Amino acid sequence: MIQTDILIIGAGPTGLFAVFEAGLLQLKCHLIDALPQPGGQLAELYPKKPIFDIPGYPEVLAGDLVNNLMEQIKQFQPGFTLAETAETIEKLEDGTFIVTTNKGTKHHAKAVAIAGGLGTFEPRKPAIENISFYEEKGVEYFVKDPELFRDKDIVIAGGGDSALDWSIFLSNVAKSVTLVHRRNEFRGALDSVEKVQELKKLGKINLITPAEVVAINGKDHVESIVLENDGIQQTVETDYFIPLFGLTPKLGAIANWGLEIEKNAIKVNNALDYQTNIEGIYAIGDVNIYPGKLKLILCGFHEATLMCQSVYNRINPGKKYVLKYTTVSGVDGFDGTRKEAEKAVVKAIE
Amino acid sequence: MIQTDILIIGAGPTGLFAVFEAGLLQLKCHLIDALPQPGGQLAELYPKKPIFDIPGYPEVLAGDLVNNLMEQIKQFQPGFTLAETAETIEKLEDGTFIVTTNKGTKHHAKAVAIAGGLGTFEPRKPAIENISFYEEKGVEYFVKDPELFRDKDIVIAGGGDSALDWSIFLSNVAKSVTLVHRRNEFRGALDSVEKVQELKKLGKINLITPAEVVAINGKDHVESIVLENDGIQQTVETDYFIPLFGLTPKLGAIANWGLEIEKNAIKVNNALDYQTNIEGIYAIGDVNIYPGKLKLILCGFHEATLMCQSVYNRINPGKKYVLKYTTVSGVDGFDGTRKEAEKAVVKAIE
Repeated sequence: MIQTDILIIGAGPTGLFAVFEAGLLQLKCHLIDALPQPGGQLAELYPKKPIFDIPGYPEVLAGDLVNNLMEQIKQFQPGFTLAETAETIEKLEDGTFIVTTNKGTKHHAKAVAIAGGLGTFEPRKPAIENISFYEEKGVEYFVKDPELFRDKDIVIAGGGDSALDWSIFLSNVAKSVTLVHRRNEFRGALDSVEKVQELKKLGKINLITPAEVVAINGKDHVESIVLENDGIQQTVETDYFIPLFGLTPKLGAIANWGLEIEKNAIKVNNALDYQTNIEGIYAIGDVNIYPGKLKLILCGFHEATLMCQSVYNRINPGKKYVLKYTTVSGVDGFDGTRKEAEKAVVKAIE
Repeated sequence: MIQTDILIIGAGPTGLFAVFEAGLLQLKCHLIDALPQPGGQLAELYPKKPIFDIPGYPEVLAGDLVNNLMEQIKQFQPGFTLAETAETIEKLEDGTFIVTTNKGTKHHAKAVAIAGGLGTFEPRKPAIENISFYEEKGVEYFVKDPELFRDKDIVIAGGGDSALDWSIFLSNVAKSVTLVHRRNEFRGALDSVEKVQELKKLGKINLITPAEVVAINGKDHVESIVLENDGIQQTVETDYFIPLFGLTPKLGAIANWGLEIEKNAIKVNNALDYQTNIEGIYAIGDVNIYPGKLKLILCGFHEATLMCQSVYNRINPGKKYVLKYTTVSGVDGFDGTRKEAEKAVVKAIE
């Protein structure tokens, strides 16, 4: 069982920054995310796109913001349970919680902060009858570890940035890459479209358009897929089938935790500390709703901070420590590091 | 009369960032600050010290944060009334406000946001009987424009960073610099102390310690000051006397505006939009108080944002525009510039 002070569900920017503020209060955090890497939609959906409204950043690429947040929190040594989704929650008699993921990983925490953004990003799955049978047996909706595909034959389906970018990347890893799309036109960064065009000409990507994958064959694992266009079918032998049709956010299992839900978001009773109707469970960032709510990253940072202070007060009744200027207090990492402003000297001039 | 949508009192980080969020909503801002430059205490008190808790910045010097915020807001062309303090406020029948400074500058605004931090930074004044007579006649508590002192004889008093740093800087501008301190020991950055020591040896700074300035002489302007140590007095001829004894924050005239005050801060009725008991007057950042309040810069950023949205709703009743992701919406500057994420292309691969 993973033990932590604050279990954060969702490793997007709000969840990541919560680790920092919790750390200042000497609280340890562990994060669960459905995606295979931290950063939420910033890392998964638009890492190379600029954000203009992060205070103090006239412009920052979403991926860089995630990297900076990871750097900012590293001395507080957060734990991660990635590529899993929180399924069930149990409140124990002592007010602590046990959260179990879809893969059975158990986490025991003094408080739970749901920083789920617009929800768990679930892959849009192609309408192929037996596709669920082949999940983790050759069908992959995310590229979690490119090494899985080394020297394998793979078929990628999709017409957006993910399909383009992974086709490019895996063309250097896999034995063969076949890219299938139901249209001739791809929608993505100009660079990526041009790079795929070039790799196609070099014979490093096998492009089949327009076509759709309509069936998967194989005994215990994907062995081939069937493509169709205009009623004509063809079979392509492959080890892996990777449909990259985008992600849809879903509140998922959290919707059944007994939390008050309004407009597909979790109601927090006030803007005092962003606590939900269940004491000890908080909702911060885009996933919550309260009067005046704005779905902005910078608001999530504020909400994360007040949540941490509230958790601290809750589990340290009577203690009066409050978050204050780090320029004055410095930052003591759990790894023994200390950051602080240079002290003034007192020195005679003669 | 200066006309604006939101008049922001206090040009610290919270007030500066408000300009950006207001700009996204096509609202124009004007800022008043008692200090001669924007940035509040970050620029005035600790520009070279690091801040560790700005989200996405593992470490940023306070002065750099101010520069970045100025860069972030420049396309929204904020106006500034600097080195003046807001004295009186009048609410007109149409719900707009006229704010007049201590120097008589008048501002007409649709809403007022007090972002006054810990208060107006007022200089600690030495206890010299007739010092107020010489204010702006040779006595300066801030170095607003170093050129004022070009080829003049100046006396600086004080033992901290300001006294050290301005002595160093002005030693290249003034005809002569005399630094007076009541102790032999100075308290400041090691660099600065060592640099003053060196300039003293080179004869570029005339150091008199321990000593205190006890009198100022001159007809219509400072002509000399009197120093005292151990009962022995000496007169030093000078054009300017610059006492740099630090700043004390005071709520000042704002305390008499009819706003509810609690613990030397302005009460905001809730965390909905950080509005005060007077409709149309908001308080954001360290100057406000509400249940759960934390005096952190990142909280001021959030409060500024919700304030701007509230002002927009107030002066555009019925319109439904809300702040949203800038990656999607882009940023349209008042100067005609547009920032936006690169658009995806739709392109065939053949």
